[in-house]
Amino acid sequence: MHDPLKIAGVELSNRLFVGTGKFGDHSEMKAAIERSGSEVVTVALRRVDVDSGEENIIEDIPNSVQLMPNTSGARTAEEAVRIARLAKASGLGNWIKIEVISDQKYLLPDNEETIRATEILVNEGFVVLPYMSPDLMAAKRMEEAGAAAVMPLGAPIGSNKGIRMKDMVQILIDEINVPIVVDAGIGKPSEAAEAMEMGADAVLVNTAIATAKQPVKMAEAFDLAVKAGRQAYLSGLGPTRVTAEASSPLTGFLNSTKG
Amino acid sequence: MHDPLKIAGVELSNRLFVGTGKFGDHSEMKAAIERSGSEVVTVALRRVDVDSGEENIIEDIPNSVQLMPNTSGARTAEEAVRIARLAKASGLGNWIKIEVISDQKYLLPDNEETIRATEILVNEGFVVLPYMSPDLMAAKRMEEAGAAAVMPLGAPIGSNKGIRMKDMVQILIDEINVPIVVDAGIGKPSEAAEAMEMGADAVLVNTAIATAKQPVKMAEAFDLAVKAGRQAYLSGLGPTRVTAEASSPLTGFLNSTKG
Amino acid sequence: MHDPLKIAGVELSNRLFVGTGKFGDHSEMKAAIERSGSEVVTVALRRVDVDSGEENIIEDIPNSVQLMPNTSGARTAEEAVRIARLAKASGLGNWIKIEVISDQKYLLPDNEETIRATEILVNEGFVVLPYMSPDLMAAKRMEEAGAAAVMPLGAPIGSNKGIRMKDMVQILIDEINVPIVVDAGIGKPSEAAEAMEMGADAVLVNTAIATAKQPVKMAEAFDLAVKAGRQAYLSGLGPTRVTAEASSPLTGFLNSTKG
Amino acid sequence: MHDPLKIAGVELSNRLFVGTGKFGDHSEMKAAIERSGSEVVTVALRRVDVDSGEENIIEDIPNSVQLMPNTSGARTAEEAVRIARLAKASGLGNWIKIEVISDQKYLLPDNEETIRATEILVNEGFVVLPYMSPDLMAAKRMEEAGAAAVMPLGAPIGSNKGIRMKDMVQILIDEINVPIVVDAGIGKPSEAAEAMEMGADAVLVNTAIATAKQPVKMAEAFDLAVKAGRQAYLSGLGPTRVTAEASSPLTGFLNSTKG
Repeated sequence: MHDPLKIAGVELSNRLFVGTGKFGDHSEMKAAIERSGSEVVTVALRRVDVDSGEENIIEDIPNSVQLMPNTSGARTAEEAVRIARLAKASGLGNWIKIEVISDQKYLLPDNEETIRATEILVNEGFVVLPYMSPDLMAAKRMEEAGAAAVMPLGAPIGSNKGIRMKDMVQILIDEINVPIVVDAGIGKPSEAAEAMEMGADAVLVNTAIATAKQPVKMAEAFDLAVKAGRQAYLSGLGPTRVTAEASSPLTGFLNSTKG
Repeated sequence: MHDPLKIAGVELSNRLFVGTGKFGDHSEMKAAIERSGSEVVTVALRRVDVDSGEENIIEDIPNSVQLMPNTSGARTAEEAVRIARLAKASGLGNWIKIEVISDQKYLLPDNEETIRATEILVNEGFVVLPYMSPDLMAAKRMEEAGAAAVMPLGAPIGSNKGIRMKDMVQILIDEINVPIVVDAGIGKPSEAAEAMEMGADAVLVNTAIATAKQPVKMAEAFDLAVKAGRQAYLSGLGPTRVTAEASSPLTGFLNSTKG
Repeated sequence: MHDPLKIAGVELSNRLFVGTGKFGDHSEMKAAIERSGSEVVTVALRRVDVDSGEENIIEDIPNSVQLMPNTSGARTAEEAVRIARLAKASGLGNWIKIEVISDQKYLLPDNEETIRATEILVNEGFVVLPYMSPDLMAAKRMEEAGAAAVMPLGAPIGSNKGIRMKDMVQILIDEINVPIVVDAGIGKPSEAAEAMEMGADAVLVNTAIATAKQPVKMAEAFDLAVKAGRQAYLSGLGPTRVTAEASSPLTGFLNSTKG
Repeated sequence: MHDPLKIAGVELSNRLFVGTGKFGDHSEMKAAIERSGSEVVTVALRRVDVDSGEENIIEDIPNSVQLMPNTSGARTAEEAVRIARLAKASGLGNWIKIEVISDQKYLLPDNEETIRATEILVNEGFVVLPYMSPDLMAAKRMEEAGAAAVMPLGAPIGSNKGIRMKDMVQILIDEINVPIVVDAGIGKPSEAAEAMEMGADAVLVNTAIATAKQPVKMAEAFDLAVKAGRQAYLSGLGPTRVTAEASSPLTGFLNSTKG
């Protein structure tokens, strides 16, 4: 089945995006990324510490994937813009996931600042994927500002609570024309499958893979689940019923065999 | 990964069981079974109409699978026993899924009659898999009676509502020693994955595959989802949190790059 | 509004039943019962310790209420029957709530033994209210055996998890002709209201009142919530919609006032 | 219990706010408002049609209540401001519920425009209560702009779906210092009670009352439910448990009575 997701002209055959935080070590991260089959990997600029003598995380990300640096740490549009420029200047390419977060308790994104950063960075030629609190009007503004995709959270980052904002995420899927990537909150493969069944174009998973007892196997589980959910969406789910309906015929059987 | 499910000495590598009802035609059913990868297929005796001139459904079920005739149509233990014997006499083997249903509105199983039928048929040498309304004491009695597995419903048959009896199904998974196969109610691959993540040993799906717009593709989606859920269960899911926790480091970034 | 609940000829104007366990002391229990407005109070026979020198709980239960001794501690039908007879002989009247529990982890009732005890005690002239795991066929048998009401659990006793078995409880409400009293699991007034909105005839609450920081005030909160839920049920709830519909007229306003 | 809610110096003893749309006629609306006990009533300016010969809705709202005109129909901050000024000029007082909605399908509010309108109207001396899509950063901006309360939606207006945005509404309750009034989506008294148990300061209900079969009785049901939920919140709800805990003592009983 040829069913690519296109973002900014790039054709992706895998709809699971992954992050690089919280892994035990680089080799585990590398193995998990490879096993996930992911073609888009997000990385916080801080971890790409070119100048230091530390091991560079970039070297452990497969060359074939699309890097998506994120502006983690930014509290305002200006800080996000600065980080994005720095990422580009460091050779990390022109994709940027905007994260603007000033709330340190729930780590909820600031939609208004995120819209501003989107406008600025689209004008500078970036492929901009804003992380956002699911809100229809904010998503429309991001789309109008030229976002390549919109990335609503399912639940607060790292909460592993699933798609708690289901109604709003569904409205975004139905109303926004650029791809919707559900980001944050997905804690189980079943939840990733559910997002895809709802019609999301992709999901981004980090914590749930990195903090599993066996991250590499969990990465594969998410890969399978995303494929399952996408395929279910394309195959047309059946209706939900209030009363029961038998799979097997129920009447007449005993009469017909009594003879 | 070698992770077989053993039921009555039979080793199964695929944990998705499927049914044969509600398909558009036999060739679609056959293709869906094949694509599902399923190794256990349930069939109502009525459809195995040996004497009639009709096309026989059994011919369209792959030889390699374990047949599991069901007692659909039975309203009492005695009727279920009679159907089971008839199935064996017809050459369908000694596995039997007991369904005793006298409620014609919700098609809910009768646990008490099902326990009685289980006792009788185990004594006659059948491999008995009772379909039941999730209830701990009833499941314990089925186990004590020698059931090879216990098959609690997630929601009324054909409702596609998912695992609505989650707490009770989880208790069965935790407390019953024979395999638990979640049967009925599963309407989406994500729900099949969820059952497996909860620790179910297998799931049985029929309506959700047969009534999909594209049943063959949907069969594959369920296969992937069951594998995803099983693998997640084996990989150790991470904890759920109330407040957020960042995947990417959030503090100090801007200071450290300001210089 | 005259809307009495009739059980075994007794007319009740309050649909909140309460229990007597887990309170800090007898005076708190007494005050909570009074404030709850409850007209049916369940008590474990053990606490009614006539022979001991201990303070007798019965003296602290208002005279006006209908006592409903329960068979807490019984693991079989026979034990439940014995406790019921003892209760009657002790002057506690002929109402009996049957609890038969052999599972010591989840404290889930044993429907089969409960049905047997119901049959025996109805024949002996008791007003029998069986506590049960929500299952349609078991509830039908209790009704046929002459139960005065059926008391399905919403969730395991003391879990405060609410009505987790919603689909099954709703089916019992719709299909069983004697009153349905939702018992166990209700942790918040909103959940009691929800049970009543679903059409339950009454709810029984104990843990959620007794373990509140202020049990007497919480008893009043439950009283109000049960009344609210009952009144909502009688008033006819409006439909649920997928898309929005404004309460206030939305179009034309500005044009019409521009002039 | 003296537990007033203070908004802009006004002390309210009832925490149910109601709307005036969708009622069958004015006398039904009037009776429902009276029976609800509500002390704050919102009304769309359009319905207050001073110039026309039509019956004026204001005459049918009890004098004792605090009127809260809303800017229903506004698609931008400017339109909302204009309606607010018109309302004040018409003698409807200085309270204003800001609604800015340009999405005509889901009727979701526009947080950014709503913040702007809040800033302008607070500066003009209005008591401003903005209706909003639950988002922490937007709510903080409304608070900073001087909003007297913040009114997050529980679900799209008129959907009667309950508090679907529970996590976000809870975060607002926990983090915002001005009163939180849950507005829109509440379809049942149990859901109003739940909002209050979560710690909301008040709820606004319109559709669920006006479209009930018996709106006047439903208004009373909501009044009771809001009181129940508030009282439960103040009384300290008990903990939720995974395993069961008996209300009645379970062990030793039979031994102790066997003698």
